[in-house]
Amino acid sequence: MYRFNNDYNQGAHPNILKALEDTNDKAYAGYGLDTISKKAAKQVKDRLKNQNADVHFLVGGTQTNFVVIDSVLRPYEGVISADSGHINVHECGAVESCGHKILTLPHKNGKISAAQVAKLAQDYKDSTIPEHVTVPRMVYISFPTEYGTIYSKKELSDLYKVCKKYGLYLYIDGARLSYGLAAKDNDLKFEDFGKLCDAFYIGGTKCGALMGEALVINNKDMKPHFRNMMKENGAILAKGWLLGIQFGELFKDDLYFKLGEKADKQADRIRKALAKKNYKLFISNKTNQIFVVLENKVMNKLAKNFIFEFEDVIDKNHTCVRFCTSWASSDEAVDALVDAIIG
Amino acid sequence: MYRFNNDYNQGAHPNILKALEDTNDKAYAGYGLDTISKKAAKQVKDRLKNQNADVHFLVGGTQTNFVVIDSVLRPYEGVISADSGHINVHECGAVESCGHKILTLPHKNGKISAAQVAKLAQDYKDSTIPEHVTVPRMVYISFPTEYGTIYSKKELSDLYKVCKKYGLYLYIDGARLSYGLAAKDNDLKFEDFGKLCDAFYIGGTKCGALMGEALVINNKDMKPHFRNMMKENGAILAKGWLLGIQFGELFKDDLYFKLGEKADKQADRIRKALAKKNYKLFISNKTNQIFVVLENKVMNKLAKNFIFEFEDVIDKNHTCVRFCTSWASSDEAVDALVDAIIG
Amino acid sequence: MYRFNNDYNQGAHPNILKALEDTNDKAYAGYGLDTISKKAAKQVKDRLKNQNADVHFLVGGTQTNFVVIDSVLRPYEGVISADSGHINVHECGAVESCGHKILTLPHKNGKISAAQVAKLAQDYKDSTIPEHVTVPRMVYISFPTEYGTIYSKKELSDLYKVCKKYGLYLYIDGARLSYGLAAKDNDLKFEDFGKLCDAFYIGGTKCGALMGEALVINNKDMKPHFRNMMKENGAILAKGWLLGIQFGELFKDDLYFKLGEKADKQADRIRKALAKKNYKLFISNKTNQIFVVLENKVMNKLAKNFIFEFEDVIDKNHTCVRFCTSWASSDEAVDALVDAIIG
Amino acid sequence: MYRFNNDYNQGAHPNILKALEDTNDKAYAGYGLDTISKKAAKQVKDRLKNQNADVHFLVGGTQTNFVVIDSVLRPYEGVISADSGHINVHECGAVESCGHKILTLPHKNGKISAAQVAKLAQDYKDSTIPEHVTVPRMVYISFPTEYGTIYSKKELSDLYKVCKKYGLYLYIDGARLSYGLAAKDNDLKFEDFGKLCDAFYIGGTKCGALMGEALVINNKDMKPHFRNMMKENGAILAKGWLLGIQFGELFKDDLYFKLGEKADKQADRIRKALAKKNYKLFISNKTNQIFVVLENKVMNKLAKNFIFEFEDVIDKNHTCVRFCTSWASSDEAVDALVDAIIG
Repeated sequence: MYRFNNDYNQGAHPNILKALEDTNDKAYAGYGLDTISKKAAKQVKDRLKNQNADVHFLVGGTQTNFVVIDSVLRPYEGVISADSGHINVHECGAVESCGHKILTLPHKNGKISAAQVAKLAQDYKDSTIPEHVTVPRMVYISFPTEYGTIYSKKELSDLYKVCKKYGLYLYIDGARLSYGLAAKDNDLKFEDFGKLCDAFYIGGTKCGALMGEALVINNKDMKPHFRNMMKENGAILAKGWLLGIQFGELFKDDLYFKLGEKADKQADRIRKALAKKNYKLFISNKTNQIFVVLENKVMNKLAKNFIFEFEDVIDKNHTCVRFCTSWASSDEAVDALVDAIIG
Repeated sequence: MYRFNNDYNQGAHPNILKALEDTNDKAYAGYGLDTISKKAAKQVKDRLKNQNADVHFLVGGTQTNFVVIDSVLRPYEGVISADSGHINVHECGAVESCGHKILTLPHKNGKISAAQVAKLAQDYKDSTIPEHVTVPRMVYISFPTEYGTIYSKKELSDLYKVCKKYGLYLYIDGARLSYGLAAKDNDLKFEDFGKLCDAFYIGGTKCGALMGEALVINNKDMKPHFRNMMKENGAILAKGWLLGIQFGELFKDDLYFKLGEKADKQADRIRKALAKKNYKLFISNKTNQIFVVLENKVMNKLAKNFIFEFEDVIDKNHTCVRFCTSWASSDEAVDALVDAIIG
Repeated sequence: MYRFNNDYNQGAHPNILKALEDTNDKAYAGYGLDTISKKAAKQVKDRLKNQNADVHFLVGGTQTNFVVIDSVLRPYEGVISADSGHINVHECGAVESCGHKILTLPHKNGKISAAQVAKLAQDYKDSTIPEHVTVPRMVYISFPTEYGTIYSKKELSDLYKVCKKYGLYLYIDGARLSYGLAAKDNDLKFEDFGKLCDAFYIGGTKCGALMGEALVINNKDMKPHFRNMMKENGAILAKGWLLGIQFGELFKDDLYFKLGEKADKQADRIRKALAKKNYKLFISNKTNQIFVVLENKVMNKLAKNFIFEFEDVIDKNHTCVRFCTSWASSDEAVDALVDAIIG
Repeated sequence: MYRFNNDYNQGAHPNILKALEDTNDKAYAGYGLDTISKKAAKQVKDRLKNQNADVHFLVGGTQTNFVVIDSVLRPYEGVISADSGHINVHECGAVESCGHKILTLPHKNGKISAAQVAKLAQDYKDSTIPEHVTVPRMVYISFPTEYGTIYSKKELSDLYKVCKKYGLYLYIDGARLSYGLAAKDNDLKFEDFGKLCDAFYIGGTKCGALMGEALVINNKDMKPHFRNMMKENGAILAKGWLLGIQFGELFKDDLYFKLGEKADKQADRIRKALAKKNYKLFISNKTNQIFVVLENKVMNKLAKNFIFEFEDVIDKNHTCVRFCTSWASSDEAVDALVDAIIG
């Protein structure tokens, strides 16, 4: 059985394991205050060309999301998100459990637009009963989105402009950032994320690390006491250098970006095979997630040798499924899938 | 200027003021443990023909809603509501501030159906990742709804059946209960509310009291430690007898129900006038709220002598507005409005 | 039976009831945006000689406390309080339920000192692991305290100086403010409360009103969006003018202050009687609460005709009890108690 | 420089790193639903001789504590803890941020007694105003405590008896469990923890793992929806097998218990050296933490070659410091410290 069910089904890039071993019998300061973590943070800031950013290493994506969101919202404030956003549908109410309402906007291919955000923010400003409604204060988007789509530089710039106009923080969930950056149709550079949002995170868990996300805070208003927020939410790892080591490796020789490229290319091969058979994509993208509508008999046949994710019933004969490549997808596995698709 | 902007713009029924005066120089036990509150609770239970119910007196509707909802939901559980529900749009995120997600369903005339709830609950049961999604545990509806519409006995019974099947509590926001019960098309008796839901509240603030809501808990699982929930949320009035006095008066000689009838009749008179002029109702109901689409020039003319509520822009020449009658709407005021409409 | 068990066992001063009646058939804007509330706020600010203050009317003390505290604290911040503080012992965990730790200091006669606060704040500043500990951000005191004692002007000034030095907000719970101000040993003027703290509330419930507390915010940093905080916590009364009316009456001709004087004088009479019999005060003060140690047989005898509050077992033959006078304590009741004591 | 500052300053036992490597190119199911995690849970249950327990793997101790506590407490309920308990002093208000009050008891050598808990619980039961005070529902203790002391079997049994009598859950923080079990004066077996509490966790972070704690839930009332609680709090690791691998290794051939023994023996050697010089222990224990009072000049001399933790100023010439051994403390390092102490 080959696993294409998600992008977090294997350990870590070998460089990371090696680095763990090389440091295993050395002793370090706790809670992320060690030399390795500091160096890794520097590597991230260098690559981002933004020395003013704060970099924090957290363990997982849901954790990073709610800690960031809770760190800036007052009790009566809410976060704007696509209705398809990860925080809205797959985090078991983590944001609400911190006391904050998610103000949802209908997504288009997983994305929301500057115009949608502007309307919501303006409606609030125009409200005749402003103390009876949740105050919008932050916008959450994911890059790439949960549907594998990406924002163009123009779209992101427009969003950020609207955010600034209405006093909203813009926060980007980059759980799969490397796959978005490597997409053939992407025109955003990594450095742009240091300028076009207030904070974003560089996903490690899904992009080559054992675990870990590197949060980058660009906006100085979001920086004070962030480590208190982390500690209070169980998000400071005692042996923080374990995260520093991993991001240190990922940002050495642009490994992080190369891993994204590799996965996207493997996905392209699968997309090509699906196209050959005229299977219809449910949603079109150039990243590592493929949402495709299959006849059930085709789906069932593939399911004998491949693990992939059920998404939705389309009609009684068709189902939408997801194939996911990752930094670890081997040629052997992709060859096997391509062959099985083409038959 | 005559006020038709809402149903809480005047003090209280004279009987209530008189009772306040009659008791003013007597001393009572605090925190709702007084004899008057106990007697008023008994009156409610007698009228409901349900001696097993618990009755608590709270000060306001938003408060009652979030205290009840927070009292039963675990941190990972959510409450199902129409997207138009008061808790979702007009309480500044009170439910989320207690840590709970509102699982919204698209309303139809302000209502949600048993079928909608069943689908949402079944989808959760069928989820392949049940720990990643909010667990539905309660259904919130309002009677009458925010649009003045009401559930039929059949609709409410069906909803409660689905709730029981899926282990959901059914809670009814009765901020305007008296106006719903008095509606000409209503087939639910007050006693039915003792049987067809787990808890509901009898709105006082909008139906003749200075302030106060009487929460009725039918389901014994919701009863333990409810007063702790109230205290922790600032919802136990020190001089609790002030609420007992008011509900005691409202439930003497069915005053509560008569006040509802009066308001609905006044609204009928206004509806008749609007119909005569062929003004289109935005939504049709028989309770005390009238949502009507007016030409802007008609609206502006009426606004000279009457205060009513702006609801929504329909098009550049038309606006939806709300006229609200109440237990206190005088013949004089309604006559004036009817005359102004008919012109 | 005469009730001396607390200071909220009777309705309201007759002027208040009369004002309720006089306004009962008039219609007002909702949610505290009415003309009466605005005028009452002005009366408070005039008497305080601080036109820059914001005044909000809330329903009860617990509610006021947690809404104020939650409005300024970030999730990792805590509020410093005497261990005997009302928020720490009698509000069922309301502050913690908003997510905030109470950092307790051992009280001395119900009070905490500037030195104690300075030490706690300095210890935090000196902490080697500042992200692992709760950040102090506010100081809560009550005036008078739960033991009826008061802070001197010097003590309060010193506290506020320390607060400013360490970036702490100073908030004063004035549930019994009128009784504190009227105490013979008090050297603080009402106007001082507009200068020597960031916020305080003027207790209505215990000092002549049916219900209601007037929160005064001196510090402009605490003002934004406070009404959102109120709404979200069910603390905006729909018919807000009911609170405005009451504070309007209390601040007419200094009624509020006269009511405090009356109660303290009645308490003095009781204290004198106790002294005559050499009964030992548990704690000494000049306000409306008397904590006295009685022989059990004396206590039991008094209990036949008077309701008072059990406080604590002192030894097998002695008990500490509380006698409480109020704005409503009649000469008849006090005479009876004095006679019974002197026997 | 040798580090004796804490027990989490080095990576993991070599067996664990090897296992990570052996599994690195295999693919697994996510979120702890993999075969390795299931097997590791079985190993724990076998060793505990309690097949009815639920075992969950979480990343860190603070996280485990607040997720467990929040999973059982209702909003008005609190957790009893020693004032020196980790949850009360070193977790930045994590428990309060979930909405719950910590009801502190003064510790004796880091411990609380059955009698103290019984008194607190009985006082609540006897309260005349039960809705105004936090309801005790859980007891939190640590084994070993923050001072390295341990509960005897008799003490733990007594505590659990009181808990059952008063309807309190007993939860044990076992961050350093292996060091407690291995102490020479310990009479509790690992299996006892399956019977003498409702839940406890087996610390991995401080006892040989890279990170991770194994929570064991004995009481079936605490089991439902626990994974929802984890997800909502960011406590389900995407690659859950990484935790399973570690506990699988720790519970192979009793490695976990042997690591504890080793650390305690190294600590004994240091204690012996300190005794030889008549240095006074601040608190006496047989586990891996040594709290000792040193003359400042001795302390400063040691600080040149050893990193240890400052605890408290004793007087102007003396300081309490902590030396901590761990599973990784080498003979070389301990020899060096012993030599330096004896001089």
